Amino acid sequence: MTVARPDEVRRFNRSSLLRLLHIGGPATRAALATDLGLNRSTIKMLVDGLAEAGIVEERVPRQTPAGAGRGAGRPSLLVLPQPQAAVVLAVDVQVERTAIALVGFGGHILGRNSWNLHGRQRDPIEVVTHVAESAALLAGDLGVHPVAVGISVPGVVRRTDGYVHTAANLRWSEVALGERMSAVLGLPVAVGNDAEFGALAEHVRGAGRGTADAVFVSADVGVGGGLIAQGGILRGAAGYLGEIGHMTVRPDGRACHCGNVGCWESEVGQAALCRALGLPEHGPRGGIVAELRALERDSDPLARLGEYPDWLVLGLVNVVNVLGPELVVLGDLFTALPDAVVACVRDRVRERSIVSRALGGVRIEKSTLGADLKLLGAAEAAFEGVLGAL
Amino acid sequence: MTVARPDEVRRFNRSSLLRLLHIGGPATRAALATDLGLNRSTIKMLVDGLAEAGIVEERVPRQTPAGAGRGAGRPSLLVLPQPQAAVVLAVDVQVERTAIALVGFGGHILGRNSWNLHGRQRDPIEVVTHVAESAALLAGDLGVHPVAVGISVPGVVRRTDGYVHTAANLRWSEVALGERMSAVLGLPVAVGNDAEFGALAEHVRGAGRGTADAVFVSADVGVGGGLIAQGGILRGAAGYLGEIGHMTVRPDGRACHCGNVGCWESEVGQAALCRALGLPEHGPRGGIVAELRALERDSDPLARLGEYPDWLVLGLVNVVNVLGPELVVLGDLFTALPDAVVACVRDRVRERSIVSRALGGVRIEKSTLGADLKLLGAAEAAFEGVLGAL
Repeated sequence: MTVARPDEVRRFNRSSLLRLLHIGGPATRAALATDLGLNRSTIKMLVDGLAEAGIVEERVPRQTPAGAGRGAGRPSLLVLPQPQAAVVLAVDVQVERTAIALVGFGGHILGRNSWNLHGRQRDPIEVVTHVAESAALLAGDLGVHPVAVGISVPGVVRRTDGYVHTAANLRWSEVALGERMSAVLGLPVAVGNDAEFGALAEHVRGAGRGTADAVFVSADVGVGGGLIAQGGILRGAAGYLGEIGHMTVRPDGRACHCGNVGCWESEVGQAALCRALGLPEHGPRGGIVAELRALERDSDPLARLGEYPDWLVLGLVNVVNVLGPELVVLGDLFTALPDAVVACVRDRVRERSIVSRALGGVRIEKSTLGADLKLLGAAEAAFEGVLGAL
Repeated sequence: MTVARPDEVRRFNRSSLLRLLHIGGPATRAALATDLGLNRSTIKMLVDGLAEAGIVEERVPRQTPAGAGRGAGRPSLLVLPQPQAAVVLAVDVQVERTAIALVGFGGHILGRNSWNLHGRQRDPIEVVTHVAESAALLAGDLGVHPVAVGISVPGVVRRTDGYVHTAANLRWSEVALGERMSAVLGLPVAVGNDAEFGALAEHVRGAGRGTADAVFVSADVGVGGGLIAQGGILRGAAGYLGEIGHMTVRPDGRACHCGNVGCWESEVGQAALCRALGLPEHGPRGGIVAELRALERDSDPLARLGEYPDWLVLGLVNVVNVLGPELVVLGDLFTALPDAVVACVRDRVRERSIVSRALGGVRIEKSTLGADLKLLGAAEAAFEGVLGAL
């Protein structure tokens, strides 16, 4: 432990400023100085350096009529992050389709592409090849050069090196995805579980912003969860995230692909939702969403879903009791549930969870980041190593 | 963000050294210098300061015959923490008895007392009064003055101010225990859930030492859990810890005092263990432990416990799947389970948990800290605010 040297302090301040601009968007010099606790001359020096490097642009803010006559002093300059200053490739591998996006400094999606996956296209080597080709085309069209990659996968992923232990719904097993993608693209690659990246996106840009303890729970073919605890993403041993979908909720329930029986995934995942709605179990996702939207106009949507809401409540009570979050964000297919159903689920969790009662009620909300959620999370994971080096 | 001043650096180094001596025990100056990455003159200055203040003693280490002839150089002085330099009061409130201990710098118990709780003695005001009186007597006998207090309670506790929302098995509800105890003793008080403090003790002094991600699960009248994640104790919103014992594991099970049905606590807590052993449900704890010890000599202890191990496995699979720890430590009544039963439970969790398989098997071990576990954890919580101020 030695005293921090001036250049270390400057680097720390610079990377704090970059992070603030990336997350918070355009801000005046004065606001940045306040948020970082730095004085005006330090902020000026840092911003001037970023402007010279083309990482930000400075602009006189448009004056509002109310502020125009306020008199003395020049207005503080507005500092705008320049998206092209650092671009990352975000990849969202889902069971039925893969989406990619190029995301710029500041978090805006500069361009995107997606394609459906059938049969052999789900093979990991095919996925890597297709992603690399599409990314090259997209980057060429936009005239940008990504510097890092984030990939969201619905499976059990070791975060340290992006090794996919298993992604049952993709039929992947023991895939060195991080290594392979990094070799093909020649870039650093962060691979994560899709629910982890969903949680990261909610934490940085969504409902979980400013919340220290939140759980993100999502249903697609599988059910997964990501945890924000004490302000950061929680990962277990060896970087493996927990698998909330594989809590046993119904000991006499169905056999699950994980080798256990009665998993939460089997009771509230896509297939269970299909059964509740009277749809064929492996129908297209669009049909399920349409049916759920129609239910929004039903007089008693809860009754129409049979015992489905009971299992949703049971699992959420467990999640809240074990983890004690302030907020649970529901993602993916859960966001298509009628508001009346979510309201009822919320009330029943509050009523039945001893921890929720102690906390005066845990908030349960639908994600509002839409279909881009996991792309945004994958982008943030990629940016983690980039912002400090800008 | 400014450059750390020399006195801040010194204070940081001093408190790191105190923590190392408190946790690791006596060590040579050379070893301390290596562990803290400090040079010899800095260590000398720090240790001299602590010795002058009576916080440590220095002694020439006893030479081993092998080392005696090793030639040149004086041996590095051994630095011994002086227990009297900082003493804290640790309190373990259980359903049937309360224990107190005075614990010195370095973590040794200097003296202790305990008493049974019946009826009115369980009243929080009675408990506070009795603790204060016993602590004063014990401190007088030992000639020490505690400077902080840690209290372990089997309930839902807000860590920020020691407010006990509920401790059902004590029949406590909405008790401002931290405030009350602090007013009576005139000392800072840290109140925590008993499983949290069990986890803290295991993390600092037990099986969890050096483990970044561990779960401590214990059965007494209730069942609780404490989580170590990424090297620290995990707490949820508002400082409330999760309540692992109130995961639903058996949706068609018994009604629990928490208002839900089929909680893990109902299936693997003390009453369930009594049922499995054919003992009356509210018999004394000693009888249960004796019966379990006898089972150790049984040819098939697993069969004797009926479906009890199944529910233990089910809950542990959930814990491992949701949290992905490297280690699960079993505490309290669980430590009395025959080794053959624990071995079988370990195998079945490994077999059935997708996360355990990804991790190459999660270790499941009995706690070895014995009956002092929660006292040691409460002491560590009390020491947290003390070491920095020494």
